[in-house]
Amino acid sequence: MSHQIQIIKPQTGKAFLLNKGQILTVTDPQGQQVSDMVMLNRHDHSEKISSGKTLDFEESILLTAGNFLWSNRSNKMVKIIEDTNGRNDFLLAPCSKETFEIMYDHTGYHPSCLENLTKNLEPFGLTQDDIPTAFNIFMNVQFNEKGKISVLPPTSKPGDFVRFEAMMDLLVCLTACSAEDSNGGTFKPIHYSISDSV
Amino acid sequence: MSHQIQIIKPQTGKAFLLNKGQILTVTDPQGQQVSDMVMLNRHDHSEKISSGKTLDFEESILLTAGNFLWSNRSNKMVKIIEDTNGRNDFLLAPCSKETFEIMYDHTGYHPSCLENLTKNLEPFGLTQDDIPTAFNIFMNVQFNEKGKISVLPPTSKPGDFVRFEAMMDLLVCLTACSAEDSNGGTFKPIHYSISDSV
Repeated sequence: MSHQIQIIKPQTGKAFLLNKGQILTVTDPQGQQVSDMVMLNRHDHSEKISSGKTLDFEESILLTAGNFLWSNRSNKMVKIIEDTNGRNDFLLAPCSKETFEIMYDHTGYHPSCLENLTKNLEPFGLTQDDIPTAFNIFMNVQFNEKGKISVLPPTSKPGDFVRFEAMMDLLVCLTACSAEDSNGGTFKPIHYSISDSV
Repeated sequence: MSHQIQIIKPQTGKAFLLNKGQILTVTDPQGQQVSDMVMLNRHDHSEKISSGKTLDFEESILLTAGNFLWSNRSNKMVKIIEDTNGRNDFLLAPCSKETFEIMYDHTGYHPSCLENLTKNLEPFGLTQDDIPTAFNIFMNVQFNEKGKISVLPPTSKPGDFVRFEAMMDLLVCLTACSAEDSNGGTFKPIHYSISDSV
């Protein structure tokens, strides 16, 4: 299996297969760039990554090395085995055209993670309504004990990465996030690679 | 339209229709009892309540009077118009048989919100995989700024209620939650009523 680095250009996405036991490394090559990640059971797309089940079983809003990401059927999908940045969450939905219209009064076309997840998962038979809340890699979502949420620029530095071990055969989709406020105001690429061992 | 009080017995659930503009009141008659709520667009069940979109648009983990609950298609489903207790969240998935097996080492049958949501929504053509993360009414999920989650007994007193105004025609399912740790160790009923005005 290739260790070749795959490049997700700014404001785009890519879908790919990951076999049980393989290692996926998601890298922020320039720093301060979020990647949304969606995962589905490759053999049954009705089983997919679940924010609610993950927060249940991991008992934490923030997820880093040692945590698992779980499916809606209470199965482990991946283990986070390394995380050089340490700030990922599972709270907010992928940005969509409505995010920009409703929250930022944007008019006209705006690229979005939801569009990029949908576009890249459509060849596998999925539709926009099938896209669950994504795991937000490198996203810097702050919250206080009263629950107030704010999104700050990522703390990730150039070369920071998160490494996942697949616990089942997966269909994965990653984006380089399209939202100004989540990415320190500029859009950078995301890199990933797949290997058979760490 | 009837104001008649409907009773959800302990560790069960009920599904019903709610018209746009109608008012749904969910009451904890004895105190310290959680109710999980799932909502779908009655005319297209692929549109359903979304934790990610709600946290996005409301910018808060805790949701109370003045907040809206949003769908996966970025539409408002209900407005919370009154909340006498003030602690509801949208973090954790409905309890399921795996919750009790994995988190509490329970063996054998255990009633669960996921079973009750599924059983009551099946007559409307839905399956277990269609059930999204539910809105947790009266649930007392605590979290600190590091993201650590803990579930405490509800703060709701006998007669506390949350009142919702429907922003679209809905299919709703409510439970009286089946998890020991979420309900102060005992299982109580949940009451609800529907009216055409407050």
